[in-house]
Amino acid sequence: MSNSASPATPPADTLDVLLRVAQVIESRKGGDPDKSYVARLFHKGTDTMLKKVGEEATEMVLAAKDLAHAPSDDAARKALVGELADLWFHSMVAMAHLGLSPEDVVAELARREGLSGLEEFARRTQPAGTQG
Amino acid sequence: MSNSASPATPPADTLDVLLRVAQVIESRKGGDPDKSYVARLFHKGTDTMLKKVGEEATEMVLAAKDLAHAPSDDAARKALVGELADLWFHSMVAMAHLGLSPEDVVAELARREGLSGLEEFARRTQPAGTQG
Amino acid sequence: MSNSASPATPPADTLDVLLRVAQVIESRKGGDPDKSYVARLFHKGTDTMLKKVGEEATEMVLAAKDLAHAPSDDAARKALVGELADLWFHSMVAMAHLGLSPEDVVAELARREGLSGLEEFARRTQPAGTQG
Amino acid sequence: MSNSASPATPPADTLDVLLRVAQVIESRKGGDPDKSYVARLFHKGTDTMLKKVGEEATEMVLAAKDLAHAPSDDAARKALVGELADLWFHSMVAMAHLGLSPEDVVAELARREGLSGLEEFARRTQPAGTQG
Repeated sequence: MSNSASPATPPADTLDVLLRVAQVIESRKGGDPDKSYVARLFHKGTDTMLKKVGEEATEMVLAAKDLAHAPSDDAARKALVGELADLWFHSMVAMAHLGLSPEDVVAELARREGLSGLEEFARRTQPAGTQG
Repeated sequence: MSNSASPATPPADTLDVLLRVAQVIESRKGGDPDKSYVARLFHKGTDTMLKKVGEEATEMVLAAKDLAHAPSDDAARKALVGELADLWFHSMVAMAHLGLSPEDVVAELARREGLSGLEEFARRTQPAGTQG
Repeated sequence: MSNSASPATPPADTLDVLLRVAQVIESRKGGDPDKSYVARLFHKGTDTMLKKVGEEATEMVLAAKDLAHAPSDDAARKALVGELADLWFHSMVAMAHLGLSPEDVVAELARREGLSGLEEFARRTQPAGTQG
Repeated sequence: MSNSASPATPPADTLDVLLRVAQVIESRKGGDPDKSYVARLFHKGTDTMLKKVGEEATEMVLAAKDLAHAPSDDAARKALVGELADLWFHSMVAMAHLGLSPEDVVAELARREGLSGLEEFARRTQPAGTQG
């Protein structure tokens, strides 16, 4: 998971970024609920996080519906990206709270798709107990 | 998960899993609805995909609630990973249908978190119009 | 809760109807899962019912969005009524499974609205323990 | 909850609670958003109402899950009734915004269940075009 400084080096891949977002989320555990939104979610607990997941899923559905009605509307496209980021972010907060990493989800996706070359990665990172 | 040297053509073993899952999804567009689940979703259209997102969000909430009640239950942990994969997967299908990539979402997450070193990634991939 | 035969008598009020729908639901408990959809839901249990509630909420949101885009479209109006009926129906199935009646919900709505003349009704029917 | 004699003008004590709640909601249209929560929802429009429906559906699912884990817990029972009231209430606000009445939904439920004696009610109130 290296990401060296050289400008010739390609930027981080998507999982690198998700893992770093997960680190930021993790670092908020036990933080001051008055100063950090994520610390506040950890403080309030599972139900508050899951309500946010349900809420953001609905907002994503509404934004997707708007973009489907106006496919070339840049603001609608941006709005949908924002709602998807909200949905993934809050699901990552719930994951952090429950001891999971984005790597678990990405590995499961790779495993299901039977992506050649990714199978070893999936085997290496998938949750304990998923292998026969 | 290291990023290899060449910026232009990452070798086949570059494991940007989400982008490769997105490619697999993309490759199902116009496929035979009788043979592929994803082709069937594309065939049915936006609403069917969004119903799945709503459904999977609820299933993720239920699975998270079960794991919260039994934190050391491996089957509950596996079930939650599976529901999260379902949720992210179906949101990626809706994204593909509406012209978005996982990179858009991940870039937005990086941008929000102001992740140092990831800002260039965010700049490169974020949706048109999001920069001042 | 009488509903006499005379044509001069006004028809059942909405709660009468909901209570009779609830009776039909109740009568399916322990029924043959192969013959009745509701018996099948009871057989599968809480999570299956709650998934349906989440699914129908999303479908209602999609249908409402369609009607908002085309307010005079009769088919869109009918579709939304259908989704609302699905949402209320499946929430009533979950209620029956968990020992609640539509009367509990309607009484709570009356209580909140402080509807004059309905307060006594609310007091009479509200769930045990809701009064100070 | 008896239905009084006159079909034309039911007396004030006719307890069709849902219709009276719907009247209260209707009366908030155009009201001061700073003074009334429902007026604020009408002011903000369809998406805000639908987000609330999605949010309340998730909260109802969480509360139902809690009651399923602790069936004899009175507080859990009360909480679920509260969430169901929230869900029905916000779906009624969306209905009022889109020109529907609880009667439309209840009539559709009666129609589906083929409830004898309620068919006239269903015929009288069901949405235009639903009859063969």
